[in-house]
Amino acid sequence: MAKEKQNLIFNEDATVTRPRGFLAGAVACGIKESGNMDLALVVSELPCVIAATFTTNKVKAAPVLVNMENLKRRTAKVRAIVCNSGNANACTGERGLRDARRMGSVTARKVGCNPEEVVVNSTGVIGVPMPMKNVVRGIEEAAQLLSLDGGMDAAHAVMTTDTRPKHASVQFKLGSATVTIGGIAKGAGMIHPDMATMLCFLTTDVVASRSVLKRALSNAVERSFNSISVDGDMSTNDTALLLANGLAKNLSITNSSSREYVIFYNALLALCQHFAKAIASDGEGATKFVEINVRGAYTEQEAKRVAMSVANSNLFKTAVFGHDPNWGRIACAVGYASARIVPERLAISLGRMKVVRGGLATKFDEVKASAYLSENDTVAVSIDLGLGTAGWTAWTCDLSYEYVRINAEYTT
Amino acid sequence: MAKEKQNLIFNEDATVTRPRGFLAGAVACGIKESGNMDLALVVSELPCVIAATFTTNKVKAAPVLVNMENLKRRTAKVRAIVCNSGNANACTGERGLRDARRMGSVTARKVGCNPEEVVVNSTGVIGVPMPMKNVVRGIEEAAQLLSLDGGMDAAHAVMTTDTRPKHASVQFKLGSATVTIGGIAKGAGMIHPDMATMLCFLTTDVVASRSVLKRALSNAVERSFNSISVDGDMSTNDTALLLANGLAKNLSITNSSSREYVIFYNALLALCQHFAKAIASDGEGATKFVEINVRGAYTEQEAKRVAMSVANSNLFKTAVFGHDPNWGRIACAVGYASARIVPERLAISLGRMKVVRGGLATKFDEVKASAYLSENDTVAVSIDLGLGTAGWTAWTCDLSYEYVRINAEYTT
Repeated sequence: MAKEKQNLIFNEDATVTRPRGFLAGAVACGIKESGNMDLALVVSELPCVIAATFTTNKVKAAPVLVNMENLKRRTAKVRAIVCNSGNANACTGERGLRDARRMGSVTARKVGCNPEEVVVNSTGVIGVPMPMKNVVRGIEEAAQLLSLDGGMDAAHAVMTTDTRPKHASVQFKLGSATVTIGGIAKGAGMIHPDMATMLCFLTTDVVASRSVLKRALSNAVERSFNSISVDGDMSTNDTALLLANGLAKNLSITNSSSREYVIFYNALLALCQHFAKAIASDGEGATKFVEINVRGAYTEQEAKRVAMSVANSNLFKTAVFGHDPNWGRIACAVGYASARIVPERLAISLGRMKVVRGGLATKFDEVKASAYLSENDTVAVSIDLGLGTAGWTAWTCDLSYEYVRINAEYTT
Repeated sequence: MAKEKQNLIFNEDATVTRPRGFLAGAVACGIKESGNMDLALVVSELPCVIAATFTTNKVKAAPVLVNMENLKRRTAKVRAIVCNSGNANACTGERGLRDARRMGSVTARKVGCNPEEVVVNSTGVIGVPMPMKNVVRGIEEAAQLLSLDGGMDAAHAVMTTDTRPKHASVQFKLGSATVTIGGIAKGAGMIHPDMATMLCFLTTDVVASRSVLKRALSNAVERSFNSISVDGDMSTNDTALLLANGLAKNLSITNSSSREYVIFYNALLALCQHFAKAIASDGEGATKFVEINVRGAYTEQEAKRVAMSVANSNLFKTAVFGHDPNWGRIACAVGYASARIVPERLAISLGRMKVVRGGLATKFDEVKASAYLSENDTVAVSIDLGLGTAGWTAWTCDLSYEYVRINAEYTT
């Protein structure tokens, strides 16, 4: 199902093992009561340069704290990612830190690297000690299964309330070299940041400096995962990782104003936005995927605040669920965003239908507008502030009965 | 049903007409399709000193803009409040401004005052022109019905998605004078600020300077209406009014460090908190009323941010609805509040049951904790940050299927 996208070859069937030199494997080791797969390994044949973004929540899960410590050194290299689902290892104190370090050292022993070369991840319930016997057995078994075909299992093993696995790759040319970025991701309870964890593991064979990777990842995350009603606030475990093993043998990208950087960044951004949209459209209980395009703002930051204000509005999201073209709720959410707004300049469209012009309702057809909401799985809201030239896009989903059911019944 | 409360005589059966010299009346004039009452007048025999707080939303409804203009003058006095429900007169442009001014002038003519002495309020759907024929007839009819007994009708006439009217009074002594503050209020869709309007009309016979009234109202609003998951953001129409006609004949309160000010302020705060709690517990679809007490913060502002972060968390609110003692969601919301937090110092209690100490789960009884949530209509969450001496209390409700139903089906 490969498709061409601005000189990028996008492959929605591929995973972290698509770039050269990466293997993956996953097993069910009994952390999840369901018996579903719950432990994944991703391993690179060669040590990788790494970029990482972690949650800004002040309550950080144990593995996040351990990773931040391990990756502090500028010379830090990484060989493996280990990730369990079913238990977040958060709010677990000293014991949690010991357990996270043990996950690293057990993985290191099986892979044949140093414990600091393993990135440790957990997702699931908070405050419950890790069932380490299961986890250790899981790591040992997953290590036996490492293969080029293991990426799909790994994508399944990191899921919690996700209804489908999230994986893809993107390929492009840098000079004569073919570079690939692959990834797997898991999603979040879409409304407000809260604790539902977002994880994204990206692998690539590009040759690039650490500072270039860091810059590219941080910019791409801002325009993807941080634009899906996550609001700057994040869960205790949120993590995005980018591992680069250099096997593509392109001329090393060391300068972020180079043409090569731009090509790489655009590919990375496309992949991150693919995952961000996949997460938003798989939001808990979602029946609709919603794209919010803001333009005409004075600054990008203000455009983002407006987009996220609408994306986070429960009243807007329930209106979408109810197929109610309630533009007043959009205007209201625009109005309380921390951004410069002139109500008389505001224009709003649902799909191609302009519903507000100059801050006032147009004579739009309510029946048609409601039909637009009911007949489409993807809904586009365009907001023009009519002030400047800056814009931003955010993604979210509607708020349904099912969201309430999932989160009222989610067991500890 | 009068009860004593710290030297305050609290009366939950009374309304805006309890203080001397205030009359009220209300009618159904056909703005609401349901045929329920939808237009209310509150009138003082004498001109009143006034304090007002209005929404901080940059998209302000027409009546809010008109009131802000009228009340700008330091010498502004007020004789009447007019309020309709069923239509917010927001995002209605020049026509909306004309309609709001006309509501003021029609009321003024019936009451016998200047149009600037009327405060105009609207609540309901956004973006629909006001049915002015009905509104004018409603004002004229309500003016015929003004009486000491009309306050209860007025409390009904301001309701939108509220399930019960909100009204009360508080009485206290200042020297030999008996002072009364009365009020009616209407609530909001509780989750996130969004557009559901909060209105509170307070009347009093106290003698006090404008600056004293303004200071008292603004401080009381901060610790009541601004502490019910309203987040500093407000709807297009939110308004709290305090009218003082001076008929209690107490020695005028002109100094906010005087003992008399403190007595008056505490009474006003008690009444505002009564209304704030009534609004939170009548939140759309609410099955539980939730009180969140934060202490041990370095500053009151940080304590408030932590309390509001938890109060606004959909995941926490759905857990309460599901009777799930999921303290991890509380810890997570604490962690992403903009406040100084040391996770290892954090303690959390549900009711009297300590569930987190030193950032870790205690060995609490999950069955008992779940029973606490299922058996009580009011749920108390206590959060001790263990850092400083500042605290704050916020109020909210749970997030239920019914919330989604109300807001998905709310018709324009």
